[in-house]
Amino acid sequence: MREVAIIGIGQTRVDEHWDKSLRVLAGEAILSAMADAKRESVDALFVGNMLSGSANHQQHLGALIADWVGLRYTEAVKIEAACGSGASAFRAGLAAVGSGDVESAVVVGVEKMTDSPGAEITSSLASAADADWELEQGLSFVALNALVMRRYMHEFGWKHSDFEGFSINAHANGAHNPYARFQEAITDSDYHKSPMVADPINLMDASPIGDGSAALVLVPVETLKKTNSPMIMIVGSAAATDSIAVHGRFDPLWLSAAEISAKQAYSQAGIDSTMIDIFELHDAFSIMAALALEACGFADRGQAPRLAIEGQISPQGRVPIATRGGLKARGHPVGATGVYQIVEVTQQLRGEAEGTQVENARLGMALNIGGSGSNIITTILQRI
Amino acid sequence: MREVAIIGIGQTRVDEHWDKSLRVLAGEAILSAMADAKRESVDALFVGNMLSGSANHQQHLGALIADWVGLRYTEAVKIEAACGSGASAFRAGLAAVGSGDVESAVVVGVEKMTDSPGAEITSSLASAADADWELEQGLSFVALNALVMRRYMHEFGWKHSDFEGFSINAHANGAHNPYARFQEAITDSDYHKSPMVADPINLMDASPIGDGSAALVLVPVETLKKTNSPMIMIVGSAAATDSIAVHGRFDPLWLSAAEISAKQAYSQAGIDSTMIDIFELHDAFSIMAALALEACGFADRGQAPRLAIEGQISPQGRVPIATRGGLKARGHPVGATGVYQIVEVTQQLRGEAEGTQVENARLGMALNIGGSGSNIITTILQRI
Repeated sequence: MREVAIIGIGQTRVDEHWDKSLRVLAGEAILSAMADAKRESVDALFVGNMLSGSANHQQHLGALIADWVGLRYTEAVKIEAACGSGASAFRAGLAAVGSGDVESAVVVGVEKMTDSPGAEITSSLASAADADWELEQGLSFVALNALVMRRYMHEFGWKHSDFEGFSINAHANGAHNPYARFQEAITDSDYHKSPMVADPINLMDASPIGDGSAALVLVPVETLKKTNSPMIMIVGSAAATDSIAVHGRFDPLWLSAAEISAKQAYSQAGIDSTMIDIFELHDAFSIMAALALEACGFADRGQAPRLAIEGQISPQGRVPIATRGGLKARGHPVGATGVYQIVEVTQQLRGEAEGTQVENARLGMALNIGGSGSNIITTILQRI
Repeated sequence: MREVAIIGIGQTRVDEHWDKSLRVLAGEAILSAMADAKRESVDALFVGNMLSGSANHQQHLGALIADWVGLRYTEAVKIEAACGSGASAFRAGLAAVGSGDVESAVVVGVEKMTDSPGAEITSSLASAADADWELEQGLSFVALNALVMRRYMHEFGWKHSDFEGFSINAHANGAHNPYARFQEAITDSDYHKSPMVADPINLMDASPIGDGSAALVLVPVETLKKTNSPMIMIVGSAAATDSIAVHGRFDPLWLSAAEISAKQAYSQAGIDSTMIDIFELHDAFSIMAALALEACGFADRGQAPRLAIEGQISPQGRVPIATRGGLKARGHPVGATGVYQIVEVTQQLRGEAEGTQVENARLGMALNIGGSGSNIITTILQRI
């Protein structure tokens, strides 16, 4: 497979965009990414989205968006892997450009969740879980994660307050990101007095939904080598699945699909986890941030909260995470999130992460999770 | 890109499978394809599906199905392009194997439509059209196609009965296909007395929905060359989009996306349309069969009904279409249809199309259409 680079990025703020349709939102991100890449056209479009069929009564986003952004006749499809849809679409774009099938591609993630009734969105989101075995019991997604967090606290002896660092770090970073849904720092007191959602997950452990879109432009490195420097290259990309139902896992406190995909990506990049300068992980809930850090080799099993407690996850720490706010503060427009993460890693590697720049960031990683750990995509980017 | 071959196929009958869930249906097709390929495992799974989020309250089919068929931990995603989802998933599988990213892949199309209320399915299917501009007017999919057919009849001077050959041929062929939803030939009298659905489209002009799954196994040709003969190779594969709303097309009676993708595929294969031995086209409605024949170069503009009238579309004719029943008789489980078509072309090229075998078939083509012509994928296979 040919080496592939990211030459343009674009995003909308994650927000309540009641005045913008799916195509308008996606169009803003795409046109911004294409302008950044100085391209007027591309050969293919890959859309990451989870909920448009149920929440927006609109499927077929590939053709819909391609036409809207002036790419009529261009190949365009949607890829869905629950909340892992964004990075899955990225992998489809990477395969298309890497294989030589096309010479350029746009990957866009888009989701529009806030102008549907909340109960409908909760129900639609739950379709990422196992309808026959989990939904049937009335389990929502936050309930599933609450069960996992409770077990984790029991097993490893952590208190609820030991997780506060994940939320505080995310909000502190999001305060510097003009595209974040919440641009305000929180205190430990805010964390502790926030209302319970599904015990032990309170409002500050849970990422907010939102409307938003992020996009990036991919081209083969061979077309760039002489002119572009620095360049953001994709040096690792892998995906793995697991049992979709949490009760089907061999160990509900271990993200096997994260471990597998991260190891593959490390191996492709010829690195180990200690060489990663920033890690945009999938902090849909605090517990998922902890499990991701452990499965990817940044903390021992059951020990990730220590990284948060010791301040190692800040932009100045050993393992900076959620550097632009993460899912918690930037927001979690589900099918778009994976693309936001890769866009944010690119910002860091380019030195454009104003306010939360990680110094001399050269290797960045994104981990996008579909379901409660059942479809996990690792992406490693390097500044060359 | 490496050359890729199809080494295994599997399918369920298209039917009302009320006793089988999505994963069970998909599993039957996949395990049958893997048995046919003599493989116990593959490196990746690509699922074509359109409606599971709304009709079955189950998204995330990649991980769901991978685990069910014993491929836990394997990369797996869903691809959606309305009724073009099946062939779009096939293209994702082709890119993954062709790029060298994986050494083998299963592509499966699956759809389960008959145990949801009919009105809900009609509404879900309509989400393949433009929600803001077409659905808003109350247009269903059959209504959109009726407008196109009426205009075609007006423009080129055809009567409704001139289309009967498409339906009669499909049902005659489907009678020989044990996987077809309708395995019974029809007469011209059946055609004429069938009830009107949306004038001028009557019941015999419209394909039936259904539950079903089809699958195939892809591997690089280089791993086969010494041992396998004959071999079914993918020699052409391309996709193109168009305005999702019919009123947005420059010409609503011309499938530009079919013309573009077919021309690209012909060029990749180094052939023209006259060399195609069988053509599995997307006869969701009789009018779509006619438009596909014209856009792909098998008939002059406005003249496709003549091929049906002259009997040229039968397995013994010049342009055999719907040789295993087509969407009309085999059935149209929307997101699975594109995979059924490629499986059927493979059967023909292998000489396994009992009852409707096209003699010495060497080059076969499949055309899968998403929406009313807005996402069209052409696949050309060759027996080597």
